[in-house]
Amino acid sequence: MPDPDPDAIRSLVDRYVATFSAADREAWLDLWAEGATMEDPVGSPLRTTREEWGAFFDESHAMVDSLRLVRTGPVRVSGAEAAFPMQARPVLGGDEYCVDIIDVMSFTEVGGQVRIATMRAFWDPTALRPAED
Amino acid sequence: MPDPDPDAIRSLVDRYVATFSAADREAWLDLWAEGATMEDPVGSPLRTTREEWGAFFDESHAMVDSLRLVRTGPVRVSGAEAAFPMQARPVLGGDEYCVDIIDVMSFTEVGGQVRIATMRAFWDPTALRPAED
Repeated sequence: MPDPDPDAIRSLVDRYVATFSAADREAWLDLWAEGATMEDPVGSPLRTTREEWGAFFDESHAMVDSLRLVRTGPVRVSGAEAAFPMQARPVLGGDEYCVDIIDVMSFTEVGGQVRIATMRAFWDPTALRPAED
Repeated sequence: MPDPDPDAIRSLVDRYVATFSAADREAWLDLWAEGATMEDPVGSPLRTTREEWGAFFDESHAMVDSLRLVRTGPVRVSGAEAAFPMQARPVLGGDEYCVDIIDVMSFTEVGGQVRIATMRAFWDPTALRPAED
């Protein structure tokens, strides 16, 4: 199978960030291919089903007043894989915090649409700090 | 084996960037563990020996007048792995160019020192462009 189009990969990443930030649970879940593996953070057990990805989404949003993702640099596409830097910006008790993340993803095509096949999120929970901007 | 100390990982990344930029070939080669795998860019054949890593170093520096790496965000450490964003900044014919890269590395300890066990570099050669700053 040829590699997905790089622009389609970048577009998927933008939808990933936008739907997560908008708490659009089903649209975010639709971005994953069946059987995809989520490892967030790196070193934690893999989540491999829509139910498990949904539980991750719910847990992430339940812990905070609101939570948005902000991409902080370009998506680096290499073949059928990509990596991009971002910040997660949770609001807790009215104050915004931030933590730096790099997501690494591989992709597959399902019915002509690019979907996530694997995702690994590099970040350190102890690096959460008050947002200064 | 316990995970390497996160500060030791960050220190190794800084040495990696500094020695590559200074064209300090042997110091850069000393950062790799025996049998480590280099995949740069992602999708290319693995380089697994000091001779092969050295050939990569030589080829990278031979193509340009000079070449430096500039880290563009924090190192995200997750256990014994890390990812960080950077730019490669080659000078060609007196003009500086840049390309965005994310390196993903895993680490091991050799004689009490953190060393690179695996390295994968995400970037797109077609994204090379004139540096604007």
